[in-house]
Amino acid sequence: VSPTPPRPTSHDIAREAGVSQSTVSRALRNHPRVKPLTARRVREAAARLGYVPDDTARALITGRTNTIAIEIADITNPFFPEIVDVLHDELTLAGYRVVLFNERTDRRPDAGLQSVLRGRAVDGVIITAATLGDRTNELLRDGPLPAVMLNRDVRGFVGLDRVVADNRGGSRRAAAFLHERGHRGIAFVAGPGDASTSLERERGFCGELQRLGSPVTEALRRAGPFSHAHGYRAGGELLALREPPTAIFCANDVIAFGVLDAARAAGVRVPEELSVVGFDDIPMAAWEAFSLTTVRQPLGEMARAAVSALVGRLRGGSDWRPRRQVFATELIERGTAGYRGRR
Amino acid sequence: VSPTPPRPTSHDIAREAGVSQSTVSRALRNHPRVKPLTARRVREAAARLGYVPDDTARALITGRTNTIAIEIADITNPFFPEIVDVLHDELTLAGYRVVLFNERTDRRPDAGLQSVLRGRAVDGVIITAATLGDRTNELLRDGPLPAVMLNRDVRGFVGLDRVVADNRGGSRRAAAFLHERGHRGIAFVAGPGDASTSLERERGFCGELQRLGSPVTEALRRAGPFSHAHGYRAGGELLALREPPTAIFCANDVIAFGVLDAARAAGVRVPEELSVVGFDDIPMAAWEAFSLTTVRQPLGEMARAAVSALVGRLRGGSDWRPRRQVFATELIERGTAGYRGRR
Repeated sequence: VSPTPPRPTSHDIAREAGVSQSTVSRALRNHPRVKPLTARRVREAAARLGYVPDDTARALITGRTNTIAIEIADITNPFFPEIVDVLHDELTLAGYRVVLFNERTDRRPDAGLQSVLRGRAVDGVIITAATLGDRTNELLRDGPLPAVMLNRDVRGFVGLDRVVADNRGGSRRAAAFLHERGHRGIAFVAGPGDASTSLERERGFCGELQRLGSPVTEALRRAGPFSHAHGYRAGGELLALREPPTAIFCANDVIAFGVLDAARAAGVRVPEELSVVGFDDIPMAAWEAFSLTTVRQPLGEMARAAVSALVGRLRGGSDWRPRRQVFATELIERGTAGYRGRR
Repeated sequence: VSPTPPRPTSHDIAREAGVSQSTVSRALRNHPRVKPLTARRVREAAARLGYVPDDTARALITGRTNTIAIEIADITNPFFPEIVDVLHDELTLAGYRVVLFNERTDRRPDAGLQSVLRGRAVDGVIITAATLGDRTNELLRDGPLPAVMLNRDVRGFVGLDRVVADNRGGSRRAAAFLHERGHRGIAFVAGPGDASTSLERERGFCGELQRLGSPVTEALRRAGPFSHAHGYRAGGELLALREPPTAIFCANDVIAFGVLDAARAAGVRVPEELSVVGFDDIPMAAWEAFSLTTVRQPLGEMARAAVSALVGRLRGGSDWRPRRQVFATELIERGTAGYRGRR
C-alpha cells in the first residue's frame, strides 16, 4: 500500500510554476486579477504536484465526486418535482450533491445522461426517464457507474436496480372499481407510447375490462404526452362523441386534471355525468379544485428505496446484485368517480 | 507561457504506481474488481503525473467545470419548475451542466449554496432563494464565483447581477384594478416575511390602496409560506370573518389557488361573491380549474436574461459591472375578479 504523498504547499506550487506565492493563492481561488495564462500555469503545476485545492482535485484523488445525477423526463410535469424533492432530501442527508438532467431539454433524448456516463462526473445516477437509446444502453452495460431506475422500467437493461409501483395491479383495481359502479364503454387516455408506466397501466386496465366483458374500444382510446394539455384535448374529444363515455381512466393525474378541465369547459358535471380516475396521487390530486379519485403509488417510499439501493451499492462491497423492487398501490376515493346513472 | 505538459500514458502511470497497465485502465474506469487501495494508488500516481482521464481532472487543469448551480427555495412550489425548466434549456444550449440545490432541504438554509461556493465545484450560480445568511454573504463578497440573483432580490449583496420583475408596479396595478371595480376592505395574503418578492408586492399593493383611501387593515392580512396550504388556511379564515372581504390579493399564484379552493370548500362563488388576484402567471393559472386573474411576470424572459448575464460574465472579459435588470409586469384578466356587488 503506497502512503498518501505529502500534501504540497502553495510554496511548492509557486516554485514549480515560477510565480509568487500570492499569485498561486489568487490563481487557485480563480481571482479575476490573475491573467488566464498565469492561472493555467499555476493549475498545471498544482496538478503535477498532486495538490488538492478543492472539490475537483479531491474528486480526482479519491475517485469520488459525492454527486448523484437524477435524470428526469420533464420538470414541468408536476409528478417529477415530488420525486426530485424526496430524492434531493434523501441524497442530501446521505452526503451527496444532486445534478439534475431534464431529458426533454436535450436535443437527443438522452444526450445529457450519456455525457454523465462518459465523463464520470458523478458517482451514480437515478434514472426516471421514459426511454433510453442504444448508446445509453451500451454505456450503462459497459460502464461501471451504478444506476437505479425509478418509476420507469426500461426493458433490455441489465445490471440496474429498479424501483417501480405495481402499475398493472393498480390499474386492474381501477377497472374493477369503475365496472362495479356500472360503467360500460369506459375510455382510456394513455400517456406516451414509449413510457413503461403508461403501457403497464393500459395493460392492467384494458386487460381487466376485457376479462369483465367490457373492453376499451379504439374509439375510446387517446394517447399523448403526460400533460394537462393532452388530457384537456383528449377529454374534449371524448366528451364531444355522439356516445360520450361515462367514465375515463387516465394514465396519470396530470392527464386527469386536463380531462376534468375539459369537462368543466363542456359543462359536464363530475361525478354526476362523468367519472374520472387518475394514477399517481400527487399532492395536487387532493386539492379541492380536483379532489381526484386516483391510484396512489407510494412515491416517497419508492424514492427512498431508490436512494437506499444506490447508496448501498456505492458504499457496500462486491456482493451487490441487481434487484427489482415493486411497491403496492392503493385506490384513493375522492370526489370524481361515482355510480353510472346516479345524476 | 508554459506549454501544456506532455499527456502521460497509462504506461507511465503503471510504472509510477507499480502496477500493470490493465490494472491502471480498470482503476481509472472505477472497475469494481480493482481493490480500493490499489485504485487509490493508481489515481494518486495519475494525479502526480497530471493525467487527464475524465471531466474531473479536466476541470482541475482548465479551472472550469462547465457546471452551473441553481439554488431554489422549494422545488414542490410549482413556480420553481417553470424557472428551472427555462434555466435548464438555456444553460444546456450554452454548453453547461446544471446542479440543483433545493434550499428547503438543507438543515441550515443555505448550507448547500455555501458548500458550492467553498468547493468551487461549479463555474457560477443562479440564486432564486429567499434569504441568505451572513456566511453566504461573506462567501459571495469575497469569492470569485460569478452569481446572478433571479426573481428574489436579497439586499446587502454587492457584486451580483440581479434579474427581477417590477413587483411593486405590478401590485399597484392589481390594487387599482380591484379598487376601480368597487372593492373596499380588500384582504392581502402575503408570502414569507423574508422573501423580497412578497415584501415588494405588499408595498406596492398596500401603498396604492392607502393612497386610494382604502388601506389593508391588520385583520385582513395573513402571512405564511408560498404554498397552497397557506392560501387554503388563510382563505378559510378570511371567509369566516363576520365581515369577509369581497376581494383577496395573493402574493403569488400558488397561494391564490389555495384561496380559490377555500372558497370552493366554503361554497363562496368566484367571482360573484369573491374576487381573487394572484401574481406570477405560472401556466397552471390558465387552467380551467382556476382561470386565475393575475399579474404576469415574464418568467421565461427573466430566466433567459439571468443565463445571459452569467454566461456573458463567464466568457467575457474584465469589463463586467453588476447590473440590475427589472422586467415589466402585466395584469392578465381571466375569470376570478369581478365588480363588487354584481352577484
